[in-house]
Amino acid sequence: MSDRDRLGIHTMTVKPWSLQECCSAFAAAHVPAITLWRQAVEPVGLDAARKMVDDAGLRVTSLCRGGFFPAKDAAGRQKAIDENKQIVDEAVALGAPAIVLVCGAVPGQSLKESRKQIQDGIAAVLPYAKAAGIKLSIEPLHPIYAADRSAVNTMAQARRMCEQLNGSGENHVGIALDVYHVWSDDALEQEIIACSQKDWLHAFHICDWKVEQSDTLQDRGLMGEGVIDIKEIRGWMDAANYRGDIEVEVFSTHHWARDQHEYLAEILEAYDNCM
Amino acid sequence: MSDRDRLGIHTMTVKPWSLQECCSAFAAAHVPAITLWRQAVEPVGLDAARKMVDDAGLRVTSLCRGGFFPAKDAAGRQKAIDENKQIVDEAVALGAPAIVLVCGAVPGQSLKESRKQIQDGIAAVLPYAKAAGIKLSIEPLHPIYAADRSAVNTMAQARRMCEQLNGSGENHVGIALDVYHVWSDDALEQEIIACSQKDWLHAFHICDWKVEQSDTLQDRGLMGEGVIDIKEIRGWMDAANYRGDIEVEVFSTHHWARDQHEYLAEILEAYDNCM
Repeated sequence: MSDRDRLGIHTMTVKPWSLQECCSAFAAAHVPAITLWRQAVEPVGLDAARKMVDDAGLRVTSLCRGGFFPAKDAAGRQKAIDENKQIVDEAVALGAPAIVLVCGAVPGQSLKESRKQIQDGIAAVLPYAKAAGIKLSIEPLHPIYAADRSAVNTMAQARRMCEQLNGSGENHVGIALDVYHVWSDDALEQEIIACSQKDWLHAFHICDWKVEQSDTLQDRGLMGEGVIDIKEIRGWMDAANYRGDIEVEVFSTHHWARDQHEYLAEILEAYDNCM
Repeated sequence: MSDRDRLGIHTMTVKPWSLQECCSAFAAAHVPAITLWRQAVEPVGLDAARKMVDDAGLRVTSLCRGGFFPAKDAAGRQKAIDENKQIVDEAVALGAPAIVLVCGAVPGQSLKESRKQIQDGIAAVLPYAKAAGIKLSIEPLHPIYAADRSAVNTMAQARRMCEQLNGSGENHVGIALDVYHVWSDDALEQEIIACSQKDWLHAFHICDWKVEQSDTLQDRGLMGEGVIDIKEIRGWMDAANYRGDIEVEVFSTHHWARDQHEYLAEILEAYDNCM
């Protein structure tokens, strides 16, 4: 498989585009895979979305995103579990084999409690996901998001959750590794190896870390615009036998304000350059 | 020792004040300890600074800050080593038993290389510091600063550096734990225990993590303004037999713009509330 055969792009990367625009443009550019964000699917509905993706000949890598399990009260936590089950149904309808989990956090609630609620939440959704054949991919988020977006912040922590949640030899719960979140982890290579030995490397997201960021959420860099040595991390993923898609996921108000066709051409070039 | 007997305040916390203003105000408020930033010392010089601190009856907890070892070329790295030796001399002159190291990073240089340069740099300064009786305290910085301020980003990583750098049973190189940088580490308690067993917990800095930050460097919260459970971390430090000063280190353009006497009163109240 050549690198281009493994390229996936998140609909959120080209946020201004409708799902139809994404599908048409990706197909025209021979992008083989797409990661669907629910926000892009919602306006057209599941059936129409599935048809667009299929007609364009795109492979769906995963559905973004489930998670957000912690809540102050039990009703809130149950609501999150119910919604995640619904997202499992959506993944089935869309032909997505996995759901990316942004696990959630409640400002002011202890991380210990949020982490417990995350584990309990995934455990509650897991049998339903398993029965549907949908994998759950925990995305450890950069510690800068620990207070309000995800209390799961390192590969080691996500791996320990996988250990708690999976049965022996199973990989229904795994990890979506996004270079933005884990690039500075000095144990990253060892963690990739450890996760790989259990077959827990579900997904590989790439973008870049800009030294100057105007916003800590929506000023991510396209590969090459920052300091992450993506080739090195890609090498570790290769060595660990990761053979899945390599997904371009960039949140950038700067790039979203541009002509998205020009931007897509740059994405392809940036992808080739970092492979 | 009561909690107030362990209170230290960084000159940088009340940045608008001159060193004389810091000393007078801290003494008047019965703050027993001060951490000197070189920027506050520089305008008056070492001798006058020492006299101000002594006359005010303040204990100097440490000198901030050394480090910044990585550089693109050997000359730059040697310059950093020379400067850190000079900072050792300054610490001796000021009566500071330790230097806080913000280890440095070079945008675009691999973290692996920067980490090697940091370790080499500390190793080069260590005999000089040891001979002078000055401890070197590595401060792991939040991963958000990995690209440009410090390639040492977790307690575990700092602990491994201490292992490499200290002789058996020695603690000349240790760790300055700042809650802002490590609060989300799910292994924090275990790391505190592991470091304590080697007597490597040199310093304990407190402030808070605000969920909304207008700036990722200078919008830190005073204790209670954010989400860090300082009492819990303090409990871990107590249990690990840390008996040193508890230093308030807050960078905040918001608080710096205020009347610093009013702010100091709030610092004392916030300190008492989180003990």
